[in-house]
Formats: sequence, structure tokens, C-alpha cells
Amino acid sequence: MIIAMKPTATLREITAVIARLEDLGITPTVSKSDDATIIGIVGGKKGVELAPVAQMPGVAQLVETQSPFKRVSREYHPEDTVVRTGPLTLGDGGFAVIAGPCAIESEQQIFDAAAHVKRLGATGLRGGAFKPRSSPYSFQGMGEQGLKFMQAAGRQHGLATVSEVMNVRQIEVMVRYIDVLQVGARNMQNFDLLKELGAAGKPIMLKRGLSATIEELLLAAEYVINSGNPNVILCERGIRTFETETRNTLDISAFPLCKQLSHLPIIVDPSHAAGRRDLIKPLTLAGIAAGADGAMIEVHPCPDKAFSDAKQTLSYEQFGLVMAGVAPLVEAMRLAKS
Amino acid sequence: MIIAMKPTATLREITAVIARLEDLGITPTVSKSDDATIIGIVGGKKGVELAPVAQMPGVAQLVETQSPFKRVSREYHPEDTVVRTGPLTLGDGGFAVIAGPCAIESEQQIFDAAAHVKRLGATGLRGGAFKPRSSPYSFQGMGEQGLKFMQAAGRQHGLATVSEVMNVRQIEVMVRYIDVLQVGARNMQNFDLLKELGAAGKPIMLKRGLSATIEELLLAAEYVINSGNPNVILCERGIRTFETETRNTLDISAFPLCKQLSHLPIIVDPSHAAGRRDLIKPLTLAGIAAGADGAMIEVHPCPDKAFSDAKQTLSYEQFGLVMAGVAPLVEAMRLAKS
Amino acid sequence: MIIAMKPTATLREITAVIARLEDLGITPTVSKSDDATIIGIVGGKKGVELAPVAQMPGVAQLVETQSPFKRVSREYHPEDTVVRTGPLTLGDGGFAVIAGPCAIESEQQIFDAAAHVKRLGATGLRGGAFKPRSSPYSFQGMGEQGLKFMQAAGRQHGLATVSEVMNVRQIEVMVRYIDVLQVGARNMQNFDLLKELGAAGKPIMLKRGLSATIEELLLAAEYVINSGNPNVILCERGIRTFETETRNTLDISAFPLCKQLSHLPIIVDPSHAAGRRDLIKPLTLAGIAAGADGAMIEVHPCPDKAFSDAKQTLSYEQFGLVMAGVAPLVEAMRLAKS
Amino acid sequence: MIIAMKPTATLREITAVIARLEDLGITPTVSKSDDATIIGIVGGKKGVELAPVAQMPGVAQLVETQSPFKRVSREYHPEDTVVRTGPLTLGDGGFAVIAGPCAIESEQQIFDAAAHVKRLGATGLRGGAFKPRSSPYSFQGMGEQGLKFMQAAGRQHGLATVSEVMNVRQIEVMVRYIDVLQVGARNMQNFDLLKELGAAGKPIMLKRGLSATIEELLLAAEYVINSGNPNVILCERGIRTFETETRNTLDISAFPLCKQLSHLPIIVDPSHAAGRRDLIKPLTLAGIAAGADGAMIEVHPCPDKAFSDAKQTLSYEQFGLVMAGVAPLVEAMRLAKS
Repeated sequence: MIIAMKPTATLREITAVIARLEDLGITPTVSKSDDATIIGIVGGKKGVELAPVAQMPGVAQLVETQSPFKRVSREYHPEDTVVRTGPLTLGDGGFAVIAGPCAIESEQQIFDAAAHVKRLGATGLRGGAFKPRSSPYSFQGMGEQGLKFMQAAGRQHGLATVSEVMNVRQIEVMVRYIDVLQVGARNMQNFDLLKELGAAGKPIMLKRGLSATIEELLLAAEYVINSGNPNVILCERGIRTFETETRNTLDISAFPLCKQLSHLPIIVDPSHAAGRRDLIKPLTLAGIAAGADGAMIEVHPCPDKAFSDAKQTLSYEQFGLVMAGVAPLVEAMRLAKS
Repeated sequence: MIIAMKPTATLREITAVIARLEDLGITPTVSKSDDATIIGIVGGKKGVELAPVAQMPGVAQLVETQSPFKRVSREYHPEDTVVRTGPLTLGDGGFAVIAGPCAIESEQQIFDAAAHVKRLGATGLRGGAFKPRSSPYSFQGMGEQGLKFMQAAGRQHGLATVSEVMNVRQIEVMVRYIDVLQVGARNMQNFDLLKELGAAGKPIMLKRGLSATIEELLLAAEYVINSGNPNVILCERGIRTFETETRNTLDISAFPLCKQLSHLPIIVDPSHAAGRRDLIKPLTLAGIAAGADGAMIEVHPCPDKAFSDAKQTLSYEQFGLVMAGVAPLVEAMRLAKS
Repeated sequence: MIIAMKPTATLREITAVIARLEDLGITPTVSKSDDATIIGIVGGKKGVELAPVAQMPGVAQLVETQSPFKRVSREYHPEDTVVRTGPLTLGDGGFAVIAGPCAIESEQQIFDAAAHVKRLGATGLRGGAFKPRSSPYSFQGMGEQGLKFMQAAGRQHGLATVSEVMNVRQIEVMVRYIDVLQVGARNMQNFDLLKELGAAGKPIMLKRGLSATIEELLLAAEYVINSGNPNVILCERGIRTFETETRNTLDISAFPLCKQLSHLPIIVDPSHAAGRRDLIKPLTLAGIAAGADGAMIEVHPCPDKAFSDAKQTLSYEQFGLVMAGVAPLVEAMRLAKS
Repeated sequence: MIIAMKPTATLREITAVIARLEDLGITPTVSKSDDATIIGIVGGKKGVELAPVAQMPGVAQLVETQSPFKRVSREYHPEDTVVRTGPLTLGDGGFAVIAGPCAIESEQQIFDAAAHVKRLGATGLRGGAFKPRSSPYSFQGMGEQGLKFMQAAGRQHGLATVSEVMNVRQIEVMVRYIDVLQVGARNMQNFDLLKELGAAGKPIMLKRGLSATIEELLLAAEYVINSGNPNVILCERGIRTFETETRNTLDISAFPLCKQLSHLPIIVDPSHAAGRRDLIKPLTLAGIAAGADGAMIEVHPCPDKAFSDAKQTLSYEQFGLVMAGVAPLVEAMRLAKS
């Protein structure tokens, strides 16, 4: 951390800043040029807030010279983290697809979906048993019964299962049935949940909040890793902007940026980003081209009868068309990277 | 709900939409003019998603003709809801101020803050015992011990206490010590928490999420009311935009809009909206002028030594200057409204 | 400007940065602590881009220690600029209201509007003769004929006239008839227009762009002042956000921030910010409370028949109700400030 | 256009709406079901604003059933528009690259850039002679002399030239030297400029404004086409959001959406979207995967010495690496589409 003083800062102001830092138990270093005085702080001190110093007269800016995250950063862990659970592998340079319905609606539905997405190339099966819904009057999910169906469907068809955990109390039951626990966008900064997932013993898929910066997403992942669970998968699912043609705006830069800043795998969720079927394929392919490690796509036996998110859900046939585009792109990226 | 067909919709397309609706168990009414065909749906059907119909050929748009919220809406409950707890009253046409530190840091700190904010005109005392922090390496709060200090400070000085509940497990302990349970912006759509707060038996202060629309804020309030707790206080604390001079952008229109759409009281949180001390006074006064029922302001015995949010925290003296502006504005608004 | 090196920067990296600066003709000063190396640059050099230096290995950040604007800043010009033209005064501590139709539609309409807004307390008359419209199929304005009507109406009723100039070719004709030339939000960064308005000899009202930061607004004003015209009035009219209840989100913090950073007067445009009638009064009052020097409000003899912006336009009666609220608020602010 | 009445609308309210429409010279059709009354309007009436009707008691919503754009829409012109000028072709299913410096800085610089970008596969040469800069103190461009150099460089190396026109007065000189006239993001709604470019006789490249919706971008293109110039190239260059890691957020969905809604070609500008070199390649490849017809990339003989935008400018070597990725992706997309 360094403190840049304004060119107009008086000696009295500079001295006051130094005195304040010394009060806080910090021994600063001071460097002065014609243009500016810079006050350096060795290491900072845990638990000490320096923000008030930024308010002192004559201070131009506080400059953080260290990365705000540790375990999540590529500097700390230079090699890619590879998350493996059964047939699903993310972060090894390949491109994995997780597919399935928004919500588990019945035993037959989830088995049917599992059979078809497996056949078309997916290695993960998604489906929600507990549904976060903006309105209390919408369908809220099948609960534990749904998880049982999902586990059975995943086992029968050789698919890793992915499902959302909504609060700390659900962790125990989720862990019993599900391979990858998903933290939804609305819960990305539910810090108690993140901390307890550190002990879950299963990979965590962390979805970016609608208005979360990339730094905040990585800090949320830091919570999980810091609590003992290194198997975190990031998921870009669009941010909220003024554009209304799409439900959210897929932040395509998040893929190369997260790969650069962090060692964690990151996948694209084109279904929630776009909120409409006709964009699933181009957004999935764009994700591949931007460096994503996988995709999570909503697919339903009968999309028009889905209980939720019907507008963005693909039929098996439509999903097959997306998958037909995936293979050549993944191959081309191998060439483009080399 | 009505379905507007495109002017170019063919008879075949119109018939297909009607057939689909009938499959869903709905008997639509159809009206045709030279320009457009309109298909009306009586009441809709619970649990039936009509979104896929919007994707059918020839459909221009689905138009919701009913408000998405019920108990929260002014149509349902025309009179203002007045929330009263001890000395704190919100929604009766007056303007109440809740003040105190971001975090409870010690017994002395919270008693000192209580004494001063009371003297300067506040009727509520704020302070966090469990702190949501973006980074796992920041101060996380004093926990239950902090709540005890706060309860004692509130009782001694005749102030209602307001503190944040972060997850479902904390509700029980919070209810024991605190008068108003605050749901933070990051938890606004933590639906399980909202539902369980329906049984808390204490007023709930619901902060608007950083990227939540006003409709989503009201729907979140609907969760609490629908679960049995009618005492909800809304709180506008700024939304996330591209502007970087302020931490967030206070959405000043939220005050008249929420008063119009809903019967619930709404307060302004200028501290989190601005993220800087020098704007607390103008934003508080603007809140009054826009129709807010109260304000919640961060005040600390020694703001520059606060463990968190120091940048936006006022000293007692600065808080006194804000309160000196509140009285004439509240009085002027009485004249301006009449 | 200073360059903060990363704590991990090697001596080789530090030397490379210094060498690059010397190549650019800059003699840097270097200060080293245990934690970080800081390279200071005296004054910078006009026309030299330092951004590439930020990309060099080992560099943490470039820190600008000087304000990007000069003539527009309060440091440069500590007293408030007062813009006076006929009966309209902005920036003297009072609150002036400019009102009138979105577009000049006929001689009768503008005379009628002038008579009524004057009677109700306005000192400025607004009205567009050249209209910027998103669609080429919308009404495009009356042109010079409209300006003549407006000038006559303003003279007869003792009102200063305000109208939008859309391109450099219109400046000449606008100057002949109009007292204050308005630059629309879409033209805020039309730099050629700004430069030529520097020689217009009439006050310029500069509206903030929909996605312009406050810094960009002030830099745009700097263009006008730097080209010779110190009489600039800023206008906050809402920024584009994700919220859809209002046309734009009024950035209420812009008032205290602009007053702090700059000496220029700033007014509120509640009509364009809200895009709906029912919010004009609360947003105007909020503007007063936040420190605005005036307001510009759309008023029409028969709002429901207005050619444009009808949704946000007030009738004379509704405008009268707004004005009834203005007086007590302005008076209260005098007390609140002291 | 249809008007949906609220389910609670009284007969008196419905009658009032009909009366108002008849006053406006419109003969509406009325359809009533148990749930709602719908009032249909045949065709609307040019120049009549219906917005005030939306404010009438009992009205739920006005629903536009027709597309706001005509000539720009794919419905009006089902085949792709192919823009050809010399060696540059956009919209024929291929992928063309336009490259060159942000600003023309000297004869040698632009010739050197032309030689290298041609060698590496570009068919267009970009470079600004008139520069829009946020600050009046930044480099403002070489003017006509720069255009002459650019024309000569383009001719010598067989490249189509692309340069920005900033105001109506520059059109004449631009047309003399340049093949494609670019309208910058800040000028996207400079309607007078758009109208006059309708007569320019050269293709127009229209960059999306920082906060413009896709609909507004298409309406701006409509201005140009409606004024007589069908050769419009759209350019997505990022929108302004809260994320600060990148200068703007590339809206990757804009490519499939614009191709769906319109027949015009659309290119990606990764340089301005990202504002940083390290993202140019992934964003270019993502653009290809999302359906873009081309890319415009900033390349400079010596990026670290560029007068402007240095941070986002590539060296020839870096540009070569981007181009090496383009070919396999374009080929893969041919397979993925089929």
C-alpha cells in the first residue's frame, strides 16, 4: 500500500498523515520528489483500516500495490486447477458440457433428460431441487425427493450431477446426493454459505452475481478456498446492464480475465446470460473462443412445458445443434492457441 | 395476461397459439381487428409458465395486465403501514433517524455512540455484530457478545436497535436481542432467509440489492409479508452503475415510486449510497424531499479508527450538522405537500 | 503522476521503466521502501502518453495525482460562477426555474406557455426548434420559424429563452434568437460543437450524457470554457441504468459533487430523468435539497397533445403544484445550510 | 399498436380512452373478455403521440406490435447486405480485418502500418485524422494532411481506408480521401450528421454508443439508410457497465441479435471494448464465434509511443498472433454453422 499526496500538499499535511500512521502502529517510508510525496507502508497491518487516511487533507489517493486475493490468484498457484468428479473434468484444456432442466420436475423428466444430454455429449447433469424465485408465488422446487431422482439418473447414465444449494441448512442433504454444489448468482456474497461450503468435500460451482465485479467473484471464491475447499468452478452468467434485448449481458471478457488472474476453471452459462433460446448457440461458441472450460445449458424434454425458465430452455434437438457446433470450435481453439 | 399477435400473423399461427393454450387447460378469448389479433387469458393458471407461448411464430408480445405483487401493493392495502418498535416509528408521516457505527467494536464504543446519537435526535441505534465482507481477510464482527452490548446500550438510552441478520441460523439469537432485523443488500434475494423472517415476530428492514429493480425489492418484501410478517421497512442504499465518484448511485426516484406502488415505509441510507462523508448531508436532505420516512446513518466515536466503512462514517459533530439540516427540511415538506 | 511498482518487481524491471521514461524525455525520481518502489514524474509532458508504461513488467499502477480539469475546477476558480441573462440568474444561491414545452409547435402554443410559466414563477422559457429524435420517423421540429416565435414570446413575457443547438451549422441562427444555447445529452461529447460554442457569446447549458461520468461532464465543460466561453450551466438529467421504472436514474449525488469539484452552476431536469409526470415534483424538490441551482421542467398547454415527450410533460396546473413546493424547500435550505 | 386496459378498468375509463383516440382522429377497435379489455389501433397515425393515453386511468400498457425500424430490418430486406469497397468486403459470410493506428501521426507511420497490416492479412486500414478526445488538452489529430497520407498508404498497399468523421462540415473533405466514413460512438445519435451521411456516397461504419441499446443502434442506422445510403456497417465496441477491469463490456450478444434483426454487416472492435492489449485476441475470436463479419483492431508501429490509446494498441508481432488465431476459427465456424 502506498499513499500518494497531492502536489499541493503542505508539509503540515504530510506530517499529519505520517503521525496518524504511526498511531496505527505503522512505520511508513517517505519519498519526496518535486512533483509529489509518496508514503509507503510495509505490508500493511491486518485489521487496520487505512481508508480514513484517504480522507486526510493533502492526500491524493491510496494505492493498493498487492492483489486483494491470495489463494485464488494465479500468482499463488501458477498451474491450472483441474476439477474432476466422475466423468466431469473442468480445467484440463478440454471443454465439458453440463446440461439438463432448470428444475427437477419428476423422476421421468430427469431420467429422460439425463439419457438425452449424455447421448449428445454432456458429461454433467444439471437440475434444481430448491429454486430461488423472485416471486413467492412461483414454483419452489421438489426438494430432497428431486435430489434422489437426480442422483439415480446421474448414476444410471454416467453423468456428474450439479444442483444449487440455497442456504447453510441444505448443505448436508445436498452433499449426500449431488456431485457439484452450485452457489447461485443471488448467493454469491452469502458469506456464511461460502464459508460452510469450505467443508463440504465436494466441488463448488460459484456463479457470478448480477452486479458483481470480477474481483468480487474471485474474492467470493477465496472464501470457499480459504475455508478448506480448493475445488471451485467459476461461472459467468451475464451481468445486469441497461440493454433489454437480453436478460443479462454476457461479459465475454470474464473468461480471459479470470484465466489470467486465477488458476480456477470457468464455464459459460449462456441460458441465464441470454434468457432466450436463439442465442444459446452463439454464446456457447463465443465462450469457447474466449477460453471457457465448459458450458452449462438448460435442456428440457419439452421446453414449452417447463415449470420455469421455459423461454431459455432448449429441446434435445436444439441442444444437439449446439453440440454440433462445439466440436469444431474446440478443435479450432487448439490450433488458434498454439 | 394477454397475448398480442404480430400484424403479419397468419391464421395458422393464431390457431396454433390458441391450441397450445387449450392444451395448458386455458380457455382464451380472441379479439381481432384489422391491425392485430389479441388473445386474452382469464386469470392465468397457477404454476403454468406462459413464456414458451411468447416464442411461438406470430406472437408479438405477452402483456402482463396484473401487478406481480399482492400484499406489498398499495392497491391491496391503501393506507400507509406504520412500523413502531419502542421509540422508533416509521411511516407515520414523520422522519426518523437511525444512527450508529458500522460494526459494534466494544461495549464502550456502542454505549458512547448510543448516548450521542440519542442526544442529537436519533430514535434508532444501528450496529453490526455479524459483518458481510467481500474479503475473508476483513474484520467479521463481534457476534452474540456484540448483540448483548447493543441491547443494553439501546435500553439505557431509549433507542430501538437495528442489526443485520446474515443467515437463517442467526435469526434465533438476533430476535433475542434486537428490535429490527436488517436484511443486507447482498441477501435481498436470499429467499430462505426472507421466508423464515416471516415468523421472526420483529420488524424487518430490507435493503435493496445493488442491482435489484424496484419490482424485485417489492417482491422480496412480498416473501416476508407472505410468510406472516407485515412489518417490513424498505431501504434504498444506492444501485451499482458506471459512475465511480460515488460507491453507488442513490436512486432518488425509489422513494416516490415505492410510496406509490406500496404501503410500506422506506428509508434512505446515504452512507452506503455515497460511500463518502461529504455527501451524507445532501443525500439525507434529498431523501426527505423525495418522500423518505427516515434515514440510517453511520456514526462512530472516532470515525478514522472505525474497523470498517471508515470512509463513509461521520463523527458526532458531523452527524450533528446533518441533523441540524433535517428539521427545517421536514418542516418544509409538510408545507410542500399540502 | 506517479508509477507504483509491484512489491515483486525486480531491479531489472524498475530499471527498464526508468529507461523508458528517460527515452520519453522525462527525468523521474525514484523512492524505494521495503514494500514498494515508487517512480515520480514531475509534471508529465504534454502530448506524451504514459499509458504504455503501465503495461511494462513489474508496474502495479499509474496514479494520476493531478485533477484532469483546470478552468472548470473550483481549485482554479474558488468563487461560484453566476450566469445571468435577462431575468434568469443561476449560481447566486437562489433557485431558478426554466419551463416550457419539449418542442415549439406553433406561435400560439409558445406564447401561451410563456404566459403561464411566467405567472407561476419561472424566469426561463424552454422549447426545442430542432429536435434530436431516436427515430427518423418522429417529429423533427419547426426550425428557425420556431426560434422567432420563441424569441418574441420570451420578450413579451420577460423570460430568458433556452433552446437546443444540434450541430455547428445551427450556432449562428441560434445565437440570433436565443439567450441560452443548450447542448443535449447525446451531444455532450460532440467536441467540435463544444469548441465552436466557445465563441458563441451566449451562455451554454450542457446536459450530462446518458452514460457520461461526472468527470466527463466537467471535461466537456472544460472544452467550452477553454474555447473562450466561461458561462456554462451544467444539467443533470439522469443516467442510464438497469432500472426500468424510470426512463433514466437521476444521479442526485451529481449536485453536491459538481458544486464541490467545480464553480459552475448546475440544474436538475426532472422531466428527462424520470420520463413520467408523477415524479417531477419529488425529483425537483430532491434537487433543491441536494444543492441544485435551478430546474428545467417540461410544461405544455395541453400535455396529452404534445408532439413529443408527452408522458413526462406537465399541465399548467400540475406545474403550479410543483412550484408551490419549491418555495418552502428553497427557504428551508437557506436554514439547513447555515 | 394496442392498448391493454387493467382488469379493474371501469366502463367510464374505457370510454374515455376511446373518446381520446377519436379526438386524435383514430378509429379504434375494442375487444372485451372477462379478464381484460383491449383497444386496437389500425396502423397508428404519423406524428400523433399516443404516450399520453398510457397515462389515462385504467390503462395497463401500450403495446407496440410493429417493429420501430423499417429499412434496417431483416423483415424489410431478407438477404444480407454486402458492403464492398475495393479490397474490403463485409457481410458475404467471410471475416474481414481492418487494422491500423488510433491516430495518423505521420506519413511514415501510416505507410509503415499499412505495409504490415496488409502483409498480415488485413484488407482495411484504419486511422484517425480528427480525434474526439474527452479532454481538450489531448492530441486532436493531423486533419486533412493526415487524410492525404492515409489515402496514399491505402492505395499503395491495396487497402480500403476507414476514418472517423466528427461533424457535418468534415463530410466533404473525408469523402475526397477516405473509403469508409466512421461515425464514432459519441456521435451515434448526432442525427444531423447521420442524415447528411445519407448523401455521402461512401459506406458508413456506425459505432454503437457507450450506452445505446441495440434498438437505438439500428434506429441510428435507419437515419442513414433513410437519407439515401444503404451501405451501413454496424460496429459493436462495448457498452458502459459497472465492471472496471475492462474499459467497456463487449456485448457479445449484439452479433447474433443484429444479424437476426437486421440485414446489415456487423464487426467487432475489441480494442475499444477491452481497452487493454491482452484481451484483443480472445475478444476477436469470440466475435467470430458469435457471428461477426469482421474486426477493427488498433495496431501501431511502436505501440508504446502511440499518441493515443496506447494501452490497447498491438504491435505488428502481437497483431500477427491475433491473425494466426482468426483463420482456424473462421474455418471452424463454417463447419459449426452447417
